[in-house]
Amino acid sequence: MSQRITVVEKILGANERLAETNRLALDQAGVFGLNLMASPGAGKTSLIEHTIRRLADRYQIAVVDGDVATSIDADRAAAAGAQAVQINTGGECHLDAVMLQEALAQLDLPSIDLLIVENVGNLICPANFQLGTHKSVLIASVPEGDDKPYKYPGMYQGVDALVINKIDLQPYIDFDMDYFRRGVEALNPGLVTFPLSCRTGQGLEDWLAWVGEWVERGR
Amino acid sequence: MSQRITVVEKILGANERLAETNRLALDQAGVFGLNLMASPGAGKTSLIEHTIRRLADRYQIAVVDGDVATSIDADRAAAAGAQAVQINTGGECHLDAVMLQEALAQLDLPSIDLLIVENVGNLICPANFQLGTHKSVLIASVPEGDDKPYKYPGMYQGVDALVINKIDLQPYIDFDMDYFRRGVEALNPGLVTFPLSCRTGQGLEDWLAWVGEWVERGR
Repeated sequence: MSQRITVVEKILGANERLAETNRLALDQAGVFGLNLMASPGAGKTSLIEHTIRRLADRYQIAVVDGDVATSIDADRAAAAGAQAVQINTGGECHLDAVMLQEALAQLDLPSIDLLIVENVGNLICPANFQLGTHKSVLIASVPEGDDKPYKYPGMYQGVDALVINKIDLQPYIDFDMDYFRRGVEALNPGLVTFPLSCRTGQGLEDWLAWVGEWVERGR
Repeated sequence: MSQRITVVEKILGANERLAETNRLALDQAGVFGLNLMASPGAGKTSLIEHTIRRLADRYQIAVVDGDVATSIDADRAAAAGAQAVQINTGGECHLDAVMLQEALAQLDLPSIDLLIVENVGNLICPANFQLGTHKSVLIASVPEGDDKPYKYPGMYQGVDALVINKIDLQPYIDFDMDYFRRGVEALNPGLVTFPLSCRTGQGLEDWLAWVGEWVERGR
């Protein structure tokens, strides 16, 4: 991560200014930050569990979990071996930079290499709120259907990588991968994509290699 | 903060008053109104298609479709044989009573028996906005996971019926139906529930009978 402080003299929304503050805190501590977004049940928490279990011997990992009501996800992340901070958003359908700032204050950032933020399950509003993380990743899943890029363009346009989870279910579902990928390509040309299954483990290696590469760059 | 709460309360108050106006318009025309809510990809549109195809010989059906960007769902409803009105919400993550009022103005209500509103795919905000329909139905789906009642209590508390879709996928997914149902029962005791599969048709009869019974009562 660049350690340079870029002074940007332009009017930014309050959230974006705070997101920049968060980014600076991550950069100064050498933390690579990931913002994971998805529909409810696409497999965010499962992917986080696998990522922690497979990378915990190389990196110190922390998870910030945004949830409407419970700490189920944070508990799973902690059980998998990460520092975990729960944000209960109350009724909010997305995280924002203020919420992440409060969560970061509860972590010992210099000891952390990888911060994974699990956003609230929602394909709309999370795309509109920068948090200050370095990369935004969308987790789609086969049972959601192949029309989702067409229906949630804002989300698909704004991300840096796409995970297509639950590919083990393809034989049992009418999911046209070509139609899905054409929609993605139209919105976000060349988007790096990881088809995988958290259940079978298929495809996880490429995802872990991508995350690892970015963590190394940020150190 | 308290200023913000006051504004939110005023918005919700105005929405509820308008929802009552919508309800009155439906009642006067003898229309039974359903508000279908779900996560993206749970199968709202598929269930609507099946409902139209199976009930269209007995009832005049209209569909109001809320979507962020496209008319894919409204097109599918129209193809299945219903009057269809599309609401493109722009960036909004839920429908509200104003949007439904505008949609109702495009329909010939006295000729309609059943109005199905397909809300925006989201398990959070749609629960907070009354539309004026008579019954709210949540469509859950097996691949979303068995923890959803625990994670989205507001949605599960506020509905009059629950569809559990994609039960044909149960053999391929770790979904504990007892755990799921215990969560539902704690939040919404005695909730009428329809486990079904739009893909295989299993369980559709009970759902169609329930809808038909309410349409008859509303006539």
